[in-house]
Amino acid sequence: MHAISFIQDLAVIMLVAGVVTVLFHRFKQPVVLGYILAGFLIGPHTPPFGLIHDEETIRTLAELGVIFLMFCLGLEFSLRKLFNVGATAFIAAFLEIILMIWIGFEIGRYFGWSTMDSLFLGAILAISSTTIIIKALGDLKMKNERFAQLIFGVLIVEDILGIGIIALLSGIALSGTVETGEVFATVGKLSLFMIVALVIGIILVPRILAYVAKFESNEMLLVAVLGMCFGFCLLVVKLEYSMVLGAFLIGAIMAESRQLLQIERLIEPVRDMFSAIFFVAIGLLLDPNVLVEYAWPIAVITVAVIVGKVLSCSVGSFIAGNDGRTSLRVGMGLSQIGEFSFIIATLGMTLQVTSDFLYPVAVAVSVITTLTTPYLIRAADPLAVSLGNVMPQRVSRVFSLYGEWLRSIQPQGQGAVLAGMIRKIVLQVLVNLAFVVAIFLGIAFFAAQIGAWLAEWIDQENLRKAVIWGAALILSLPCLIAAYRKIKALSMLLAEMGVRQEKAGRHTARVRKVISEVIPLLSLVGIMVLLTALSSSILPSNDMLLLVGVVAAGVVAVLWRWFIRVHTRLQIALFETLDKPETPGHH
Amino acid sequence: MHAISFIQDLAVIMLVAGVVTVLFHRFKQPVVLGYILAGFLIGPHTPPFGLIHDEETIRTLAELGVIFLMFCLGLEFSLRKLFNVGATAFIAAFLEIILMIWIGFEIGRYFGWSTMDSLFLGAILAISSTTIIIKALGDLKMKNERFAQLIFGVLIVEDILGIGIIALLSGIALSGTVETGEVFATVGKLSLFMIVALVIGIILVPRILAYVAKFESNEMLLVAVLGMCFGFCLLVVKLEYSMVLGAFLIGAIMAESRQLLQIERLIEPVRDMFSAIFFVAIGLLLDPNVLVEYAWPIAVITVAVIVGKVLSCSVGSFIAGNDGRTSLRVGMGLSQIGEFSFIIATLGMTLQVTSDFLYPVAVAVSVITTLTTPYLIRAADPLAVSLGNVMPQRVSRVFSLYGEWLRSIQPQGQGAVLAGMIRKIVLQVLVNLAFVVAIFLGIAFFAAQIGAWLAEWIDQENLRKAVIWGAALILSLPCLIAAYRKIKALSMLLAEMGVRQEKAGRHTARVRKVISEVIPLLSLVGIMVLLTALSSSILPSNDMLLLVGVVAAGVVAVLWRWFIRVHTRLQIALFETLDKPETPGHH
Repeated sequence: MHAISFIQDLAVIMLVAGVVTVLFHRFKQPVVLGYILAGFLIGPHTPPFGLIHDEETIRTLAELGVIFLMFCLGLEFSLRKLFNVGATAFIAAFLEIILMIWIGFEIGRYFGWSTMDSLFLGAILAISSTTIIIKALGDLKMKNERFAQLIFGVLIVEDILGIGIIALLSGIALSGTVETGEVFATVGKLSLFMIVALVIGIILVPRILAYVAKFESNEMLLVAVLGMCFGFCLLVVKLEYSMVLGAFLIGAIMAESRQLLQIERLIEPVRDMFSAIFFVAIGLLLDPNVLVEYAWPIAVITVAVIVGKVLSCSVGSFIAGNDGRTSLRVGMGLSQIGEFSFIIATLGMTLQVTSDFLYPVAVAVSVITTLTTPYLIRAADPLAVSLGNVMPQRVSRVFSLYGEWLRSIQPQGQGAVLAGMIRKIVLQVLVNLAFVVAIFLGIAFFAAQIGAWLAEWIDQENLRKAVIWGAALILSLPCLIAAYRKIKALSMLLAEMGVRQEKAGRHTARVRKVISEVIPLLSLVGIMVLLTALSSSILPSNDMLLLVGVVAAGVVAVLWRWFIRVHTRLQIALFETLDKPETPGHH
Repeated sequence: MHAISFIQDLAVIMLVAGVVTVLFHRFKQPVVLGYILAGFLIGPHTPPFGLIHDEETIRTLAELGVIFLMFCLGLEFSLRKLFNVGATAFIAAFLEIILMIWIGFEIGRYFGWSTMDSLFLGAILAISSTTIIIKALGDLKMKNERFAQLIFGVLIVEDILGIGIIALLSGIALSGTVETGEVFATVGKLSLFMIVALVIGIILVPRILAYVAKFESNEMLLVAVLGMCFGFCLLVVKLEYSMVLGAFLIGAIMAESRQLLQIERLIEPVRDMFSAIFFVAIGLLLDPNVLVEYAWPIAVITVAVIVGKVLSCSVGSFIAGNDGRTSLRVGMGLSQIGEFSFIIATLGMTLQVTSDFLYPVAVAVSVITTLTTPYLIRAADPLAVSLGNVMPQRVSRVFSLYGEWLRSIQPQGQGAVLAGMIRKIVLQVLVNLAFVVAIFLGIAFFAAQIGAWLAEWIDQENLRKAVIWGAALILSLPCLIAAYRKIKALSMLLAEMGVRQEKAGRHTARVRKVISEVIPLLSLVGIMVLLTALSSSILPSNDMLLLVGVVAAGVVAVLWRWFIRVHTRLQIALFETLDKPETPGHH
């Protein structure tokens, strides 16, 4: 059969991987390193000879491995967890990523590498490795300590930022330039896409999964999950984003379904098989000559990763209000790079914008920092103690004062409740506006096609434009109305809080009313300006615009209650899914 | 990324398969048919257009699907089940397979097809479909009835015979001729290989799996299982057998391990994914024009499958001593073809010995007979009743007399125990002799290489031959000694049974002693003749042979007890694995 060479490759990969991982497990080293070593051993660069024949197919399967890895990362990620993650995670992750991208970029420039290589090196160094950390903390039996929980929070934020980095890099690699405006546009479009995809996905996907699960067939559920996963990846690719983003997003969407545990159980063997191929394929690319040639950059980068990550994450945790010891442990736990770096390196390679040496260098740094991680975590406590002893009393006094001050400014009691309410309302307004923007952008994108199709019935171009723009407006009316109502509620809340009876005296009620009416109106005007800016390409002439506005106002007047009902129903559907009781195994 | 067209294919396959299988499940039709329909819909022969771009990769993955299907079939097969299967299964399966191969061959000839097409058609019709039957019996809630148990027994025997058919067909397709001698040689070598592989596998593999399972990592266990599965497939391919055989055998070996349940749980999602691709790939090949063109052969073959299988299996069950109603239900349950037929059709296609139309014809017949199966099972009872009414009293009297006679000749009590003991001893002798034969054949196969290697130390060719032959003899001595001892035990048993005190009178003891000495000696001579025949190519000259014989006799005299100990230890290891307590979920 023609598949024999392929089966032979699989046999070699799995046999060698099996033996090496058993050895690595015996000597308490991460299995991932075993896979990479296995790939290195059977690869073309090591004696006796290259044992892999059909490298093309293996690489295709390795990309499936990336998809399944990111899909499972998405399954373990959850929006609820992101909402519950504290300030520590956000501050530490942001600091770490910005610092590491900058350090990586500067190191690349220092060694005279190209801009693209330097940029990708920065991105490669940015994200720490979830699998390595979980393994190390598990081995050290520290998974349930407070600093470990903080680390997991940082990792969640890193995942979402990493996804953004991948999308940005794809855009930059395709356009070939790094412009601030473009970066903002990319980030904006990406956020928009993610919000719309998440909201629609969370309304639809768990319902489909629940329907399929009713048949109680593992096979059907698996096929449905795989179908949606690959289908969504394909959609994302068509929108010119990376498949990795799609796999992660659809995973995060499915994480909100009640079948999460079952899906994880079904998908894990598939992921294990393909991710093993992925990591072995990484080892296949390792060329010892390159490693020797780039020994010096590897050493520099390794030191930079460890020092940079320990510093940025420790400082970030400390700024967010943790004590010195915990901060140091968080920093030392995060001081390595792993699977995300490989994915970014793969991205650079498949987009053909990075040099060949970058991949082996990234792998070498990852291997070394993976090996140092457990020692660093264990060294954190003694280091904190000796740092505390060495530090002048006055400095440590300032540090502890900072912590006390930070705790004192945290909103407490009623204030905290109000802050929570405000955050929730702002979030809802943003989601609704995101939908409005998405509808207008989407219709503007397809305006030419729709126009051509409409031309059969409507001769005048201006009229066509009016119909298209009006359709976009009416489609987005439920979201607009919802946003308006949320903003109104928010203004009333703010008026209540901002205008105190003891200051405004007998004008209190009137001032409050003015504020609660003016803010929504101003917002509405702002939104309309935003809309006209977004839809400038499909905007009809002014008189037509007036007509459309009148029609829309009429529709609103007649269907106001209906719009609210539809929107509320969708919103309930969304929250039903998000507020599902925490399942026992949902870690 | 270059894998996008591949991901697109996977997305299309999984999405369409998901939707169609949900529909099929709703209308209570087998999911397998849904996959085939899905493949047909997205295939190149149906409008709107071919949705699959990277057919080569899809076909490679489909072959992985075959491997996983056969591996899981092996996992569900178990030697214990084969030993426990009654006479019904053997008789019905043999009758069915011989009759169906003959019918298929004759139909092919009748339509003027080539010999190879006709032969493959026969093989395609031979084996019934386990998945379809399990599905149908499950839907009808008849899984636990007696006839269902008989059907499962027939299916187990069919699996092992089907494996033999695949090996035979591969051999025939490669040599291009069908000669009785060659068929016997192929079957002999295949049996030898299967016995040796099973025994060595059952001693080694469960121990390796138990070792890996100690690490309590699903990932490592999966990688180990996949490594052994693909590795063994590769070994089997190197020996010029089909991969399908290897997957089935290693599955049957792993079925004897204590990790069976865990392995099944891990491998099932992987199998489901790839078998879905396999069945969809079958649908891809369906060309409606071919179906229309071959409508007449399809109709004839469909009728032949249903009538032939109902007849042969019913008669087989009846001969084995079941009542008419049960026999008819067994026959009607087995009256379809399925996944095994697809595998055989794939074999013919990849070996490029069959015509293009054979595959779609097989699929069409499978689809029709799959749809008729539940109706046939339900029709069995009414049919039995009306047949009983129509049948003349005398005929039905003869039938029931046959059943009574059959039950009267079954060995009972002490006789049954003795028969069981004899069967066990004969089996052990055969296994030991199989190992002896395998050692000699193996060494003869590598004789040229070993000779070239030995030539550095030994000049004389005759001496080299003597060393090689002697090594083979000494290697096989433990098995030879074991066989001799078993034969001796058997002869004593037979002497005890055959020579009754009341007939032989006072000579009893002496006659028995003669018999129990003579038979083993004669057997030993027979074995030596067999050995010299097998090893004719490496046989040294007579004087050297004498020398080797003397040396071997010396070795036997000195190491007799040690040989027995080694052999006993291996035997205990084997039986320990085989006699493990039945696990609860082990169906």
